[in-house]
Amino acid sequence: MRTSIATVSLSGSLTEKLTAASRAGFHGVEIFENDLLASPLTPEDIRARCADLGLSIDLYQPMRDIEAVPPQEFARNLRRARHKFELTRRLGADTVLVCSSVSPLAEDDDALAAAQLSRLADLAQDFGVKIAYEALAWGRHVNTYDHAWRIVEAADHPALGTCLDSFHILARGSDPKDLEGIADIPGEKIFFLQLADAPLMAMDVLQWSRHYRCFPGQGGLDVTGLLRHVIAAGYRGPLSLEIFNDVFRQAEAGPTALDAHRSLLALQEAAGLAALPAPVVPTGTAFVELVTTDAEPASTLLGALGFARTARHRSKPVDLWQQGEARVLVNTGPAALPRALGFARAGGTPMDGTCLAAIGLESPDPAGAARRAESLLAPVLPRRRAPEDAPLEAVAAPDGTELFFVATDATGATDATDATDNADPADAADRPRLPSWTADFRPVEHTEAAGHSYRVDHLALTQPWHQFDEAALFHRSVLGLDGRESVDLADPYGLFRSRAVSNTDGSVRIALGVGPAPTDDVSRTQHIALATDDVVAAARAFRAAGGRLLPIPANYYDDLAARYEFTDGELETYRELGILYDRDAHGEFRHCYTETLGRVFFELVQRDGGYQGYGAQNAPVRLAAQHTVR
Amino acid sequence: MRTSIATVSLSGSLTEKLTAASRAGFHGVEIFENDLLASPLTPEDIRARCADLGLSIDLYQPMRDIEAVPPQEFARNLRRARHKFELTRRLGADTVLVCSSVSPLAEDDDALAAAQLSRLADLAQDFGVKIAYEALAWGRHVNTYDHAWRIVEAADHPALGTCLDSFHILARGSDPKDLEGIADIPGEKIFFLQLADAPLMAMDVLQWSRHYRCFPGQGGLDVTGLLRHVIAAGYRGPLSLEIFNDVFRQAEAGPTALDAHRSLLALQEAAGLAALPAPVVPTGTAFVELVTTDAEPASTLLGALGFARTARHRSKPVDLWQQGEARVLVNTGPAALPRALGFARAGGTPMDGTCLAAIGLESPDPAGAARRAESLLAPVLPRRRAPEDAPLEAVAAPDGTELFFVATDATGATDATDATDNADPADAADRPRLPSWTADFRPVEHTEAAGHSYRVDHLALTQPWHQFDEAALFHRSVLGLDGRESVDLADPYGLFRSRAVSNTDGSVRIALGVGPAPTDDVSRTQHIALATDDVVAAARAFRAAGGRLLPIPANYYDDLAARYEFTDGELETYRELGILYDRDAHGEFRHCYTETLGRVFFELVQRDGGYQGYGAQNAPVRLAAQHTVR
Repeated sequence: MRTSIATVSLSGSLTEKLTAASRAGFHGVEIFENDLLASPLTPEDIRARCADLGLSIDLYQPMRDIEAVPPQEFARNLRRARHKFELTRRLGADTVLVCSSVSPLAEDDDALAAAQLSRLADLAQDFGVKIAYEALAWGRHVNTYDHAWRIVEAADHPALGTCLDSFHILARGSDPKDLEGIADIPGEKIFFLQLADAPLMAMDVLQWSRHYRCFPGQGGLDVTGLLRHVIAAGYRGPLSLEIFNDVFRQAEAGPTALDAHRSLLALQEAAGLAALPAPVVPTGTAFVELVTTDAEPASTLLGALGFARTARHRSKPVDLWQQGEARVLVNTGPAALPRALGFARAGGTPMDGTCLAAIGLESPDPAGAARRAESLLAPVLPRRRAPEDAPLEAVAAPDGTELFFVATDATGATDATDATDNADPADAADRPRLPSWTADFRPVEHTEAAGHSYRVDHLALTQPWHQFDEAALFHRSVLGLDGRESVDLADPYGLFRSRAVSNTDGSVRIALGVGPAPTDDVSRTQHIALATDDVVAAARAFRAAGGRLLPIPANYYDDLAARYEFTDGELETYRELGILYDRDAHGEFRHCYTETLGRVFFELVQRDGGYQGYGAQNAPVRLAAQHTVR
Repeated sequence: MRTSIATVSLSGSLTEKLTAASRAGFHGVEIFENDLLASPLTPEDIRARCADLGLSIDLYQPMRDIEAVPPQEFARNLRRARHKFELTRRLGADTVLVCSSVSPLAEDDDALAAAQLSRLADLAQDFGVKIAYEALAWGRHVNTYDHAWRIVEAADHPALGTCLDSFHILARGSDPKDLEGIADIPGEKIFFLQLADAPLMAMDVLQWSRHYRCFPGQGGLDVTGLLRHVIAAGYRGPLSLEIFNDVFRQAEAGPTALDAHRSLLALQEAAGLAALPAPVVPTGTAFVELVTTDAEPASTLLGALGFARTARHRSKPVDLWQQGEARVLVNTGPAALPRALGFARAGGTPMDGTCLAAIGLESPDPAGAARRAESLLAPVLPRRRAPEDAPLEAVAAPDGTELFFVATDATGATDATDATDNADPADAADRPRLPSWTADFRPVEHTEAAGHSYRVDHLALTQPWHQFDEAALFHRSVLGLDGRESVDLADPYGLFRSRAVSNTDGSVRIALGVGPAPTDDVSRTQHIALATDDVVAAARAFRAAGGRLLPIPANYYDDLAARYEFTDGELETYRELGILYDRDAHGEFRHCYTETLGRVFFELVQRDGGYQGYGAQNAPVRLAAQHTVR
């Protein structure tokens, strides 16, 4: 279906907004009155600019406080409307939004409302314009879609239809049954459809609407269900986003428009209106890539963690470090620069020291995963590589992190020829053999790591402040991961929010975080959590190898002693090593942290008994300890 | 009375918080459990640190989910409590806060709650500790102060009392009658009093409490009324602030603690518990001082506005420009530097070009105004001046702006001797003659400005992002100005908020603004609105003198034409000059803007018929136009 976006949903000047909407692939726009008033362009200029950008103007909005008023007031309203219809004509648009009145002058008189809207529609017709009448959730007398429709039906005027808005309809917490009436509205009388989601919040609906709306799929409203009803009614007009949001107002228009369009594509898929390439859910974390200008500190830290440098890329300055199933690439190539710049563009600061630049996601179908990502507007990354390198599919996440869709040779061998020889025949029979990314690496001599063994438990990535909600939607829609609730974490200098996404078996977990304010560069940390079956042994080994664990205050352990009973000596061990402890309904979680390198640190975690969380309970203590160390 | 503050109300590490509380003059603190857990200091260290800082530890908090639970659960709770009482003893504190349970295990059984709290109090007594039991507004069964008190009364244990919290009591929107029961609680059984205000918001009370609490006087709750009841009950313990607020968490602890203590002083005054020097409400704006490293651009702009350079300071590089009753000082002295630094400290950026550094407030009693300010912890500014200069009383506002309390010679003469000769005898008889600040200036030759005449209508000052609410409280409590509601203004790149304060007759008006995010340096503008009886003539004269007015888009005037009827040619004049128009229930407002110089621009305004606002309706268009010009 055609897609559209209200200019109020994007930041900047009107022309910035139009350009961003066009580049993101929208077909049309709603022109929000204040954006037009503030623009130095004439309506004719705006019309021409939209035509140049391939955008239709689908709606001019809003007109307010028109109907069900005393005659003298209505005469004034008609005078005002005449100006606006003329303006709409100059814009080359054919539909004007009229919101149900909030004026104290408005009377609770449907017949009067219908008669005056009919008179208004007469006038509109003179200008070749139609009116879409919408019930605001806080309208004085008309505040439900069916009430607005009854008035439109009674007016029975060809230039008068209704506009449905998912926020206004769903925000009132209607019973799903109440929505069934939508399908009874003749499709051709639904002149427009505005879509917005919102997080579920118990607050004044006007404030909620003006500040907290978000893109479909980011909030808690059943926008998909509503859309199905509207389509069932026969509506075939544009799907248009109208989002009032304090954060979007500050964010760059370009990325916001892309995120916006992605949400509409995912919505159409969810409602069965469009078929996208199916999601290819990643099945593990194949590798994590650190980019740095000096490999030494990272190498030292990895060495202390028991990683061995097992291979080196055959054409690039990239080392592969391995420990059990955990693989970390250390890249000192010039790739670092554009990546750091990309991050800066996304709202971050240029890289200082080491940063986590890429994630290799184990994929049963890398090409399919890339097609899915591309269909949802994820930037596909050009990959400069030598002719002999294995092809790598990669896209950029909203925070600039590169996501590679890869297959890792199950044998763990780092030579492609060896790998084929050693392949598990059962596995090979199941699906076509994929080239392993490890084929690009040449083994180097090394001593196998002994003792405990790691795999990546989760990655924690601080997102650009303006794109936290979009990041969650991206990971869910593009990668097919499931989202969890957002949690607040108290840092000594402000509240963090964190929201995890994961696949079903928990073999891919990413905790998306966001700091308290756009300026929190110091907090833009990224961390790699390594799972082990024995965190105590792992911590001891790390320390024995010269690694420094984050010191945790003694008071924390006194509190643990108050809250839980431990076996003899257990708590003393945790206290000695700086191991934190948490428990949920399923099981237990023990974890500790390394020092921070550039923006990156490691966490060692031990999950027992099906513990589902990430130790959020302990985050304030960890964050405070990290501030102390800095 | 003694004042106290919960460490959760301030940002930073525990020792930063304690230091800030001590420097702001608090007598004691409540230690918030998470702050202790995250601190590397032992309880004994904390006790010693507090003693060094002259702070008592008035409360350890909170203990949760203790009472009215099954026996096995209660046994676990007692075990936990034993640890916490021991900790409290080590801290040298004597009171522990217990919040009413939110646990699903809690039973709706007051007798059980009383029995278990009594048992808990027995245990507390063993450690020399008392328990203050508080009803959370969202407690599972106990969520009102009187319910909590009935349980305490039933338990009848010397080590068990109640804690009253203004937020929990007032947030439930109780009838004022419901508060009368407070006075019936024996004062000695009120073990603690926590105070917090909050803006009136229709939202989930838990979210409201955790994120939006503010200092008394900043919000909409009747904290003063509640305090009167508690005092009537005989409570003589500390007045303690417990504020959970997302902004304070990010703000520097020092200024926040000062603002916090100021709020408690003002609260005690409002409740009749303390006598402060009476407010001396300013009666006009005597002057505005611009600080700049190059006087030329400001001089050119002032010249175009019809100002004449009438005098120069006798010992400093400061020019006095006058036009009608409006006076602007242009200061190129080294004073610029520390002021700019002060601003940077307060969260701003160092000065770039011209900035508004000081305001001269016309005061009937400058020394009294300064005493009032000092009693409310406003930083009194040392004034380096020559021995012969008139003494000037000045304090710093939260945004770093210097506020001078001055008397201007009513004759407008700039020589002190002349002034005495020409003084109005009636005026002189009323009160002792005050030295005029103008006595420090020597007249310079100039041509008197002709035609229209200005006075300062209002000043608009962008505040540091973290201190917007505090700024309003400062201006109300310190200066005795009245506050208006906060309004949202849409800028193309985010929402601004603005809140005006003024004296009764509107001769002093200050619009305090704040940008969408801590980083909005570009928007940290300050502007000086000059009132005239004929803004059209003033705008024409300004333009004829070479001044550039902010161009306003034609679309804005098309909209005006739709909204209002104008006399012939009126709208064309506005369109030509870039004059904006607004109307309220009282009258009309016409205004236009100069270009921006450094951080400063001027507005020319014409108020007719008692218009009360500031043209907020037009702010989005003005803000967009200013972005276009930049």
